Amino acid sequence: MAAGAAIVAGMLNLASQSSPAWLARSLADLDEILLDHAHCEKKAASTALSLIFRYPERSALLEPLSQLAREELQHFELMLGHLERRGIVYRKQKPSPYAGQLMAIVRTAEPERLLDTLLCCALIEARSCERMQILAENLEDPELARLYRSLLASEARHHNSYVGLAETYFARDQVRVRLAEIAAHEAEVIATAPPLPRMHC
Amino acid sequence: MAAGAAIVAGMLNLASQSSPAWLARSLADLDEILLDHAHCEKKAASTALSLIFRYPERSALLEPLSQLAREELQHFELMLGHLERRGIVYRKQKPSPYAGQLMAIVRTAEPERLLDTLLCCALIEARSCERMQILAENLEDPELARLYRSLLASEARHHNSYVGLAETYFARDQVRVRLAEIAAHEAEVIATAPPLPRMHC
Repeated sequence: MAAGAAIVAGMLNLASQSSPAWLARSLADLDEILLDHAHCEKKAASTALSLIFRYPERSALLEPLSQLAREELQHFELMLGHLERRGIVYRKQKPSPYAGQLMAIVRTAEPERLLDTLLCCALIEARSCERMQILAENLEDPELARLYRSLLASEARHHNSYVGLAETYFARDQVRVRLAEIAAHEAEVIATAPPLPRMHC
Repeated sequence: MAAGAAIVAGMLNLASQSSPAWLARSLADLDEILLDHAHCEKKAASTALSLIFRYPERSALLEPLSQLAREELQHFELMLGHLERRGIVYRKQKPSPYAGQLMAIVRTAEPERLLDTLLCCALIEARSCERMQILAENLEDPELARLYRSLLASEARHHNSYVGLAETYFARDQVRVRLAEIAAHEAEVIATAPPLPRMHC
């Protein structure tokens, strides 16, 4: 989890790498991770859809976010299949405080709110991608390792999509500066997350 | 709009046929109808997704509603394409009071709330289907007539999906009785809707 993970984290604009403790926690309670992952896909779809509702006049967002939401829902269905095959009942689960704490950095006035929200979404996708890469490399179950290898490319693409959408409406330099600021905040949020078996704890 | 439309309305469990006044209004302000239709597809996706969030323990709902939400989003994107080609700017629009008034019949206690919500969704899909059939038969623009012919089968399928989901969790007789009650309410809501150019006015 050293050199390779660092390269991945850097490519994804993350300011930190995941700790070995996260991996140990995840491997020790994989059922909880898989269930949380299903919830994450559903929440990612919901977030993309909520942006479509909030910004009807930002026409460049609409089609990409709708496509992204569809892809998240497809992954949600994929995860439901994996849960079912493993006898894991889909149910409510205490969510990680990660997304809420990350989003606390979003400024309330527009257009800053839009910029910050897009970049928070980009970083959630980035962290998911980084962690899926770690899972793909460390899971002994070949079916699950394959699953995470197959999904991490989409997460990286979604990260790039959100950054690209931000660059459609904001100057590239402004996006880069704010992305680094929010990435530093994200690294702090993930470092201080409670030790639950979750994708973002 | 007589015999054929009556058969369609009956197959869809609707208690009334759309009035010729609705068609006249729609043909007179087609741009507003197309814009409203795009909003409707987005709202249908959002409603399906909200049911997934609200009923995690109702496992039979999850995959069908996720698939349905994906299809609604695909139609949303399709409508965005039609709007763009016609130079219609996607924007906020005063919504029809239809869905809110229809949903007012939903009982607040569970499991009645679930039953009523599924059947309201079924009837919204049914009314969309009936009206798309009327548009398909009466639009002079061949591209739009083709569009509505291509979409109405999905709406009918979605109607059946929602009724089928209700029958997964409730006795068939109970579903039929409540469906007829809500259909009578729906007919009243649509008959008294304000004369706006909307899919459901």
